[in-house]
Amino acid sequence: METALFTANNIWMMLCTGLVFFMHLGFSFLEIGLTRQKNTINILFKNIFIITVGLLLYYIGGFNLMYPGFEDDDLGLLKFAGFGIAAPDGGMTPAYADGGYTWWTDFLFQGMFAATAATIVSGAVAERVKLQAFFIFTIIYVGIVYPIAGSWQWGGGFLSTLSYGSAEGFYDFAGSTIVHSVGGWAALIAVYLLGARVGKYNEDGSANAITGHSMPFTTAGVLILWLGWFGFNGGSVLSADPELTSLTLVTTSLAAAAGGVSAMTVAFFRYKNLDLTMFLNGILGGLVSITAGADQMSPNEAVIIGIIGGIIIVFAVSLLDKLKLDDPVGAIAVHLGTGIWGTLAVGIFGGLASFDQFLVQLAGVGAVAFFCSVSAFIILVILKKTIGIRVSRNEEVEGLDIHEHGMDAYPDFRLNQH
Amino acid sequence: METALFTANNIWMMLCTGLVFFMHLGFSFLEIGLTRQKNTINILFKNIFIITVGLLLYYIGGFNLMYPGFEDDDLGLLKFAGFGIAAPDGGMTPAYADGGYTWWTDFLFQGMFAATAATIVSGAVAERVKLQAFFIFTIIYVGIVYPIAGSWQWGGGFLSTLSYGSAEGFYDFAGSTIVHSVGGWAALIAVYLLGARVGKYNEDGSANAITGHSMPFTTAGVLILWLGWFGFNGGSVLSADPELTSLTLVTTSLAAAAGGVSAMTVAFFRYKNLDLTMFLNGILGGLVSITAGADQMSPNEAVIIGIIGGIIIVFAVSLLDKLKLDDPVGAIAVHLGTGIWGTLAVGIFGGLASFDQFLVQLAGVGAVAFFCSVSAFIILVILKKTIGIRVSRNEEVEGLDIHEHGMDAYPDFRLNQH
Amino acid sequence: METALFTANNIWMMLCTGLVFFMHLGFSFLEIGLTRQKNTINILFKNIFIITVGLLLYYIGGFNLMYPGFEDDDLGLLKFAGFGIAAPDGGMTPAYADGGYTWWTDFLFQGMFAATAATIVSGAVAERVKLQAFFIFTIIYVGIVYPIAGSWQWGGGFLSTLSYGSAEGFYDFAGSTIVHSVGGWAALIAVYLLGARVGKYNEDGSANAITGHSMPFTTAGVLILWLGWFGFNGGSVLSADPELTSLTLVTTSLAAAAGGVSAMTVAFFRYKNLDLTMFLNGILGGLVSITAGADQMSPNEAVIIGIIGGIIIVFAVSLLDKLKLDDPVGAIAVHLGTGIWGTLAVGIFGGLASFDQFLVQLAGVGAVAFFCSVSAFIILVILKKTIGIRVSRNEEVEGLDIHEHGMDAYPDFRLNQH
Repeated sequence: METALFTANNIWMMLCTGLVFFMHLGFSFLEIGLTRQKNTINILFKNIFIITVGLLLYYIGGFNLMYPGFEDDDLGLLKFAGFGIAAPDGGMTPAYADGGYTWWTDFLFQGMFAATAATIVSGAVAERVKLQAFFIFTIIYVGIVYPIAGSWQWGGGFLSTLSYGSAEGFYDFAGSTIVHSVGGWAALIAVYLLGARVGKYNEDGSANAITGHSMPFTTAGVLILWLGWFGFNGGSVLSADPELTSLTLVTTSLAAAAGGVSAMTVAFFRYKNLDLTMFLNGILGGLVSITAGADQMSPNEAVIIGIIGGIIIVFAVSLLDKLKLDDPVGAIAVHLGTGIWGTLAVGIFGGLASFDQFLVQLAGVGAVAFFCSVSAFIILVILKKTIGIRVSRNEEVEGLDIHEHGMDAYPDFRLNQH
Repeated sequence: METALFTANNIWMMLCTGLVFFMHLGFSFLEIGLTRQKNTINILFKNIFIITVGLLLYYIGGFNLMYPGFEDDDLGLLKFAGFGIAAPDGGMTPAYADGGYTWWTDFLFQGMFAATAATIVSGAVAERVKLQAFFIFTIIYVGIVYPIAGSWQWGGGFLSTLSYGSAEGFYDFAGSTIVHSVGGWAALIAVYLLGARVGKYNEDGSANAITGHSMPFTTAGVLILWLGWFGFNGGSVLSADPELTSLTLVTTSLAAAAGGVSAMTVAFFRYKNLDLTMFLNGILGGLVSITAGADQMSPNEAVIIGIIGGIIIVFAVSLLDKLKLDDPVGAIAVHLGTGIWGTLAVGIFGGLASFDQFLVQLAGVGAVAFFCSVSAFIILVILKKTIGIRVSRNEEVEGLDIHEHGMDAYPDFRLNQH
Repeated sequence: METALFTANNIWMMLCTGLVFFMHLGFSFLEIGLTRQKNTINILFKNIFIITVGLLLYYIGGFNLMYPGFEDDDLGLLKFAGFGIAAPDGGMTPAYADGGYTWWTDFLFQGMFAATAATIVSGAVAERVKLQAFFIFTIIYVGIVYPIAGSWQWGGGFLSTLSYGSAEGFYDFAGSTIVHSVGGWAALIAVYLLGARVGKYNEDGSANAITGHSMPFTTAGVLILWLGWFGFNGGSVLSADPELTSLTLVTTSLAAAAGGVSAMTVAFFRYKNLDLTMFLNGILGGLVSITAGADQMSPNEAVIIGIIGGIIIVFAVSLLDKLKLDDPVGAIAVHLGTGIWGTLAVGIFGGLASFDQFLVQLAGVGAVAFFCSVSAFIILVILKKTIGIRVSRNEEVEGLDIHEHGMDAYPDFRLNQH
C-alpha cells in the first residue's frame, strides 16, 4: 500500500480514537445530569477513574488479553500475551492490519473502547454504590472480563468463527453486544444486587420519579455521545475506506434521529408529555441499535432499526421500573435492551440477514449474556459479602459527595441577589 | 483520481460533517444560556427536535429536492427527485463530485446544514412560541423552503447562473445567505408575528433587559460554534484541497476574532461596559460575515469584513430593540444582519469584487429575502389563525418547561448548605 | 511529494489546529469551575479576549516575530519580518515544510498555540486582577515575549542549536517549556506581585480552601483539554507521519492517565480524601510532563513520566500554599512545575537521554526562566506602579462580575419550587 493511503487511514483512526475518548465527557454529562446534585462529584470521580485506570489496565494487560493470537477456536480464558505493550515488527508499516492504522493507533482506539463497558455500569449503580467496591469491580471487569469477551469476537475467537448453516460467524460490527451488552449485563446484575435507591419505590410497589439536577448537562451529554459515535462506529471500519465509513456515519445518524423521534412519539402518546429525557434516551437507543450492523444496513434499514430501538427504550424503562430495578440513568434499557435488539437485527436486516444468521446472533447474545452475567455476579457477590457494595442509608440520604469526597459539586454557587 | 486522495478528501468532509453536527450543541448552549431558566427544557427540546426531524426530513425528501438535477435554469419549485435516499451509480467512486467525497458523505454533510436554518429561528422565537406550531413550521421550512432556496444556488439553479456584466453567478461560498439569511428572514418574520415577551418593553417604548440564566453555557456555545465553523466553512470547499481549506480556516478564524473585538470595543465606547454577550455575538457576526466569501478573501480582507460584521451586530441589536422586535438571543442581528453584509462583501472584497458582482449579490439577497419572508409569513399566519403560535400569558410567565414538559431543567439543584 | 500525502498531512494539521483551539473552552471551563461564582464572567471575558486578541496579534506581528528566518544564532530580539501575514511563494505546495502542511495551516496552528501562554496566566491571577492591566499584559506577553521565546527554539534560534558534548540542541517537542513554562513563569511572577485573595491566608500562616463553583465545569474542562492535547502534541509532529503521530497520542494519553492516578493516590494517602480536583490536576500534570518528549518516549517511559508528574502536582500545590502564593486553579503547579519536569525528563528518558542532554535541557529551562520572569516582572511592575494590577478590596469581595461587567453569570437562575 502506498504511504499516502496508509497515512490517510491512520488519520481517520486517530480522529475516531479522539471521538471515542470524547464520549467519556458525554457519559459524564449524561450521568450527572440525570442524578441528584448531592452525588455529582462521586459520579465524576467514578468516570475519571474509569478512563484513567481503564486505559492503564488495557496497557498493562487488557490489549494483550483481547488480541492474544488464537491458534484455534477456544474461549481465550487462559490466553495472555504478557504485560505491557510493545509494537510488533512491522507494526508501523502498511503491512500491519492491511494498512488501516499503526499498531499504536490500534492499541489506543481499542483502549478507549475498553473503558466504555465500565462507564455503562457506572450510570446504573449511581447514587448508592460504595466507591471502593466499584473500583475493584471496574478493575476486574475492564481488565479481564471485557478483554476476554472481546477476544471471542474481535480477537478472532470462537464467536467470530461460529457458523451455522449459511451463516459464517457472529457479526457485531462495533459492539452492540461486545461493548454495550457487556456493560449492560453487568449493570443489570449490579442493580439487582444493590437494590433500589432510598425512596424510589413505595410500599404499594409504585415508583417515584427521582429527578436529576441538570437537563442541560444531560442534553449536552447525548449530543457529545452522538458525535462520539461517529468515531465509535466510523472507526470500527478499521480503515478510512470511503464507502464504508461514510455509509456507517449515515446509518448511525439516521438511526439516532429515528430512535429519538420514535421514543419521543411513543412516550407522548403513552404519557401525554413531551419528555426530553425519553427523547434523548431514544437517540442513544437508536445509536446502540445500529452499532452491530452499521456497515451492513441501507439508510432505510437504519431508520427502521432506529425506530424499533426507540420503542424498546420506552417499554424497557417502564418494564425495569415494574421489576423494581432502579437504574437512575436508563443505562440498562439503552445499552442492554437495544444492544440485544441491534445484534439480532443483523440477522433480520441488511446484507447478512438470514434465519441462520439470526440464530448465530442469538447464540452470540446468549454466550455473552452467560459469561458477563455470571462474571459480574460472582465479582459483586464476593464484594457484597466482604467489603459491601452499598453505602450506608445515612450516606445515601445526605449524599455521597460530602461523605466520600468531603466536598460539594457547586460549593460556591449563589443565587443572583440583584 | 487515485484512491489515497479520494480517501483523504472524504475524511476531511466526514470530519467537517461531524463539526457541523456539533454546532447543534453550540446553538443549544447559546440559546439556553441567553434565556431564562424556566424555558430551558423547552429550548433544548426544540433543538433536539430540529436535529432529529431535520435530518429525517432531509433523508425523506429534502436532499432530493435540493439537488434535483436541473436541466435548465428554473426556480426548482416543482422539481423533486423522489422520496428516500439511494446512492447513484458511481456515487462511492472518485468519479462522483470530482473525488471530493462519496455520495453518502454528501447527503450527511448537507443534511447537517439543513437543520441549521430552523435552529436559527428557534433562538429568536424562544420563551413564548407554542411548541406544536414551531414543529409544524420547522417541518415545512426545513423540509421544503430551505431545500428550494438552497437548490437555487447549490443545486445548480438560477442564482448560481445569474450573471450580470462581468459577474458570473451569485456567490455564496458556505451560506451567509443560503443558510444564515434563510434562517434569519424566518426569524424576523416570526418575531414580528409573535410579538415581544411579556415585560420586554415598557409603555413608554423603552426596553428592559431580560437576562439569561447561564453565561458559561452562552460562552461555551460560541466557542463550540466557532469550532463547528471550521467544518461549516472548511467543508464547503467540498474537498480537502490544501490551499483552499487552510485559507478558509484562516479567514474564518480571523473574521471571528475581528468581529468579537470590534463588537466588544464599540459596545464599550457606546455603553461603557465590558459586555461579554456583545463580545460573543460579535464573534458570531464575524463568522457569519465571512461565510459567503471565506475562500475568496485574503487574511487582511477577512479582518476588515469581520470588523464591520462586529459593528453591525452592535447597531442591529440596538435597532431591533427600537423597533420592538424582541429577539432573546440576537439571532436576527447575527444571522440576518451579518448574513446580508457577508454576502454583499463578496462584491466588495476578494477575488470576485466588482460592481457587477455586487449587484448580483444584491439580487441574490433580494431573491432569498422575498422567497423566505413570504414563505415564512404564509406558514406562520396560517398557524396563527388556526392553532395559534404563542403560548398563553400564564404559561409564558410561569415558564414553558412546567407547562409543556411538566418538568424543571434543574429539578434537584440545591445550594450548598455547608 | 505526491498530492495525496500532502493533502492528508494538511488535514491532520488542520484537525490538530481545531483541537488546540478547542482547548480554550477547556481552559475556560477549568478556570471558572475552580473559582467563585461572582467572578465567572470576568474569567470568561479574559479568556475570550485572549483567544481573539491573541490570534489578531499573532496575525499582525507575532508569527513574523517567531519565525523570522534566522541567519545566525542570535536572541531574535531585534528580528522582525514585518506586519501582517502573507503566504510566501510556494507556501501552498508540498515544497513548503516538507509537505507537512500549507503556510496558512502553519500560521493558524501556531496562532492557536500563542494564545495558550496567556491563558495559563489568566487562571493564576483570577478573582483579583484588574482587567485593563491584564489586557495590556496579555498584549505584550502574547504579542512579543512569547514569540521571542518561541523563536529561540521553534524559529531556529539559539536554543535549537545549543549543543553540549553529545547533545545537539535543546529539545522541546510540543512546548513543556516553550509554551507551558512561558505561561507558568509569568503566572508565578504575577501571583507574587498580586498577592493572595482576600481571606485565603490567616494571620497564623495557615491557608483556607476557597472552593470553586462548579466541579462539572472543572471536570469537563480537563476532559476537553486532554482531547485538545491530541492536537497539541499530535500536531507538533508537523505532519501526519503514521508512526510518530500515533506514538505521540499513546504517550500523551498514558501520561495523562498515569498522572491522574498517581496524584489521586498520593493525595488520598496524604489527605485521606478522594480529591477530584487533585485527580484532575494530576491528569493535566501528566499531559504537561509528556509534552516536551511525547515523540521520544516509549509507552513505559510515558507512564513513568506521568506518574512523577502527578506526584509533583500534589507537592507543588502544597508548597505554593506554604509560600502563600495563591493560585486559584493550580496553574503554576501544572504548567510550570510539570513543565520543568517534562523538559528535564527528555534528558533522562527516551531516545535523547544522556547527561549532556540533561544539562542542555536545564540550560533551556534556565534561559526561558530568566527571560520570561524578567519580562513578566518588568511589565507587571510598571503596570502596578501606574494603573495598578489589583482591583479594590470592595470589588474583590463583591465580585468582579458586577463591578467590571455590570452583570451576574447566572442572572436568572432560580431554584426549583416544586
